[in-house]
Amino acid sequence: MSFFQKLGDATKKNQSLLCIGLDSDPEMLPTRLNIFDFNRAIIEATSDLVCAYKINLAFYEALDGHGFEVLKHTVQFIAGAVPVIADAKRGDIGNTSKAYARAIFDRLGFDATTVNPYMGFDSLEPFIEYKDKGVYIVCRTSNTGARDFQSLVCQYQGKNQPLFKVVAQKAANWNTHNNIGLIVGATYPKELKQLRQTHPDMPFLIPGVGVQGGDLALAVRYGTNQKGEGAIINSSRQIIFASRDSDFAEAARKAAIALRDTINQVRTI
Amino acid sequence: MSFFQKLGDATKKNQSLLCIGLDSDPEMLPTRLNIFDFNRAIIEATSDLVCAYKINLAFYEALDGHGFEVLKHTVQFIAGAVPVIADAKRGDIGNTSKAYARAIFDRLGFDATTVNPYMGFDSLEPFIEYKDKGVYIVCRTSNTGARDFQSLVCQYQGKNQPLFKVVAQKAANWNTHNNIGLIVGATYPKELKQLRQTHPDMPFLIPGVGVQGGDLALAVRYGTNQKGEGAIINSSRQIIFASRDSDFAEAARKAAIALRDTINQVRTI
Repeated sequence: MSFFQKLGDATKKNQSLLCIGLDSDPEMLPTRLNIFDFNRAIIEATSDLVCAYKINLAFYEALDGHGFEVLKHTVQFIAGAVPVIADAKRGDIGNTSKAYARAIFDRLGFDATTVNPYMGFDSLEPFIEYKDKGVYIVCRTSNTGARDFQSLVCQYQGKNQPLFKVVAQKAANWNTHNNIGLIVGATYPKELKQLRQTHPDMPFLIPGVGVQGGDLALAVRYGTNQKGEGAIINSSRQIIFASRDSDFAEAARKAAIALRDTINQVRTI
Repeated sequence: MSFFQKLGDATKKNQSLLCIGLDSDPEMLPTRLNIFDFNRAIIEATSDLVCAYKINLAFYEALDGHGFEVLKHTVQFIAGAVPVIADAKRGDIGNTSKAYARAIFDRLGFDATTVNPYMGFDSLEPFIEYKDKGVYIVCRTSNTGARDFQSLVCQYQGKNQPLFKVVAQKAANWNTHNNIGLIVGATYPKELKQLRQTHPDMPFLIPGVGVQGGDLALAVRYGTNQKGEGAIINSSRQIIFASRDSDFAEAARKAAIALRDTINQVRTI
């Protein structure tokens, strides 16, 4: 079964567009727990409330010792419940991207990954070739630096348009296996709306609500397709660090319920 | 001492602009050696011939077991002889890039890293803030996909210019600590020449000679500055896999001598 089918099934089963980011920065952990035990507690408290988990590799690479083993065990612990996305933003020349794809899909067992488009098609092809895995291309990111290059007005196919729209168009052209999606930050609702209009069927991964300050209602309204689907809303710190005390798992569950329900209220408008 | 000072010292000491890429793909290893032993043999055979080593993290992430420990031990084994560059091409929102910078500089002990500019300044700032570490920004890459986005003509400061030139200009503006360089592929000599003209003092890291087919003489002629310095030429597979038999270290040494000397002949023209 393909990643986007799995994601659709999880969305229906849990009535949820919420994706929780397990960015378990050891400096932020609520107690002296080890990271795997923290992740397990969060997953046990929330796996019936989400359509996916997203794990940013940075926080595991920064661990002393065996961060990638913690990562692998976390993916294995989730396995089957809902799909798991590697937030890796990789992209390199062909033989190197092949090694990254092997690491993320074969070794760590992720169902999807995020990738960076700057180096072009052949840097992404090794990921896209895994037809049953999902590939979210970084398009319009949620940070302020997104304006530095993504907003530059470029000449493409006889039109002047910002770089991120060219990325979206090329991504759509490359989507022959129907396994590509786009990352579009909630902090840029106007751009999100425009991208949904030009790409009505493209799956979106939307970060930037919560700590980063994106407008949740606009993200859902503009990001979902006509069926109220086709977009997942990621929240990391707002949920996993809802409490930094021993009740962190319970607090995460409450925060996840609140966020999932708010998203669903906007979907049904 | 800053990374670029260390690099200059190693260049003088070994009379070399050659950087060897330790992209030790286990599928390519000449014998049944483990990767650390392979790396050690290559380093022992070549460390008096190079100005730096570059290690692409992808091949270590793809290893079963403890790839990052192999990476760390390799960096430690080189330590002091010449500086070591992480080819990581990272770039993410601020708190995530901070974790990547911690992983690469603090945990793994690299002297420099490569980064991807697509997400803009705040995604690179956590790396640049390490003033004694080097940061090579991906500008014009050596692969064919480089044309997909890097060649798009953009409006910037009242001029129409390709995206990679805007990246170079912004990189120069951000270089307040003098710790930023650019990655420019040898496979695009015209663009390399243009970038050297507009950025006479910017350090370049030049991949793409060897297996990728870039013209070595043009890379050296166009890439170096007026003193015949300011650029390092990376070669990975051409050297470390010069032989895939038990004489691999000896073969790597011969290939490295040949490449270093050819580079120096062009430098003195």
